Amino acid sequence: MSYTAWVFTIGTELVQGRVVNTNAAYIGRRLTLLGFNVIGVITLVDDVETVSRYLSNVLIHERPRVVVTTGGLGPTYDDRTLEAVAKALSRRLVLNEEAFKTVKEKYDKKGLPLTPERVKMAYLPEGAEPIPNPVGTAPGSWIEHGNTIIVSLPGVPSEMMSMWEGWVEPRLKSIGPRLHIAEITIKIVGVPEASLAPFIEKAVKKFARVYIKSHPKGEELGKPVVELYIMASDESSEKAISIAEDVAKFIVDSLHPYPASVERLETRVS
Amino acid sequence: MSYTAWVFTIGTELVQGRVVNTNAAYIGRRLTLLGFNVIGVITLVDDVETVSRYLSNVLIHERPRVVVTTGGLGPTYDDRTLEAVAKALSRRLVLNEEAFKTVKEKYDKKGLPLTPERVKMAYLPEGAEPIPNPVGTAPGSWIEHGNTIIVSLPGVPSEMMSMWEGWVEPRLKSIGPRLHIAEITIKIVGVPEASLAPFIEKAVKKFARVYIKSHPKGEELGKPVVELYIMASDESSEKAISIAEDVAKFIVDSLHPYPASVERLETRVS
Repeated sequence: MSYTAWVFTIGTELVQGRVVNTNAAYIGRRLTLLGFNVIGVITLVDDVETVSRYLSNVLIHERPRVVVTTGGLGPTYDDRTLEAVAKALSRRLVLNEEAFKTVKEKYDKKGLPLTPERVKMAYLPEGAEPIPNPVGTAPGSWIEHGNTIIVSLPGVPSEMMSMWEGWVEPRLKSIGPRLHIAEITIKIVGVPEASLAPFIEKAVKKFARVYIKSHPKGEELGKPVVELYIMASDESSEKAISIAEDVAKFIVDSLHPYPASVERLETRVS
Repeated sequence: MSYTAWVFTIGTELVQGRVVNTNAAYIGRRLTLLGFNVIGVITLVDDVETVSRYLSNVLIHERPRVVVTTGGLGPTYDDRTLEAVAKALSRRLVLNEEAFKTVKEKYDKKGLPLTPERVKMAYLPEGAEPIPNPVGTAPGSWIEHGNTIIVSLPGVPSEMMSMWEGWVEPRLKSIGPRLHIAEITIKIVGVPEASLAPFIEKAVKKFARVYIKSHPKGEELGKPVVELYIMASDESSEKAISIAEDVAKFIVDSLHPYPASVERLETRVS
């Protein structure tokens, strides 16, 4: 089974750049550390047609194991992500009894009336399981559709993160690829990125299940500084870190013709 | 003519969440303030097939006026965005003489050899115009393809921003929608978002060319705080701001049954 993942972050404020998309980074990072192979993040305006079209396209053509959506679960006119999810899956949007109960309880406790905008938050695609929201009011949605799990969470970061950590991540872990991720970051001063490039390419070809990325941090033509990120994955955490160390050694050894200074910035295994 | 725009941010480090996508926010904001209607931001791993597939899909199905890509223009094995652009446009990737001259000059000046990895940065899709890079070495690419302009910039933020401000934005301005954008942000304390929702919906229906978004900042059930963003666009800046003021007044007036406190956070016209 291929453990690929896609993320949809919904919100006109995101595409218009008024809000920096920290949710995408958070989810991408957490999925990666769980061993999922994140392929893409699609950020769209609050428009049911557009969101359902791209969701449906990804579901059909990419057949991902997991799709996570954030945003568009609230009470306003443009919070219509679950309508788009339902449409993409050809399911109906129905009042979910469990979701309704939790939404009602929250407002009852505060003596606030259950307006149509509040009831709206309890409508989920048919067959969805509500994800409790301990911070806010809108529940999330967990749907298993064929071989794909579609998780929908609110866009408010504190709500999204609390639901991710308390509910979504433990579930994904139990069905996930059960891979350990080793990461090494090295700072290389004095070698331009273009001179490093052939060694990186050699290492990528030589080692399996390894990802290497160079990030230029200085000036290619002045004082070149490159941060080199190495990631290896394996069922065993010992094996993962030993592969990552081999890659790091291979690249550092190949630098000997250069007046390079090398510093280890980070070593991490999940 | 419809002035829609899409942004592609290319980089495995972005989808994996090791780097927060500030480039997407920068470009989305700049395009919006130029009057373009940004519909989506697609962030993808460094993979030619995936990038060209989604680019081609957006070009064919969305017919945007502008597509901006960032990332993947450098010298390493995974910097292959222009290959993906060429593929999506069914063009060849060719050594661009002007781009080659500027890349060669930069390395000559430093006495550095012109390795294949460095020459690679001068390969652009056939018919592209190189965009000078005053900060780094990789030139950008400007392509007019049918009714769409495809702009490709490096992913290093300082390079991308300097090329955007010095070269891309003046060009887009001259061909752009020539709209002025008025923005008003109001902080409303004491009214839950779900109670505001019907007034926002009414305002959206009542006023043309207006975008309104509510951002819950407090707790819906405790102390509700909502930041309300109002955007209006018009050929005249006076008209744009007067529409935005009308919308703000319409919503503030409708709050009279609530114990609301209202504060103007920002008023801005571009």
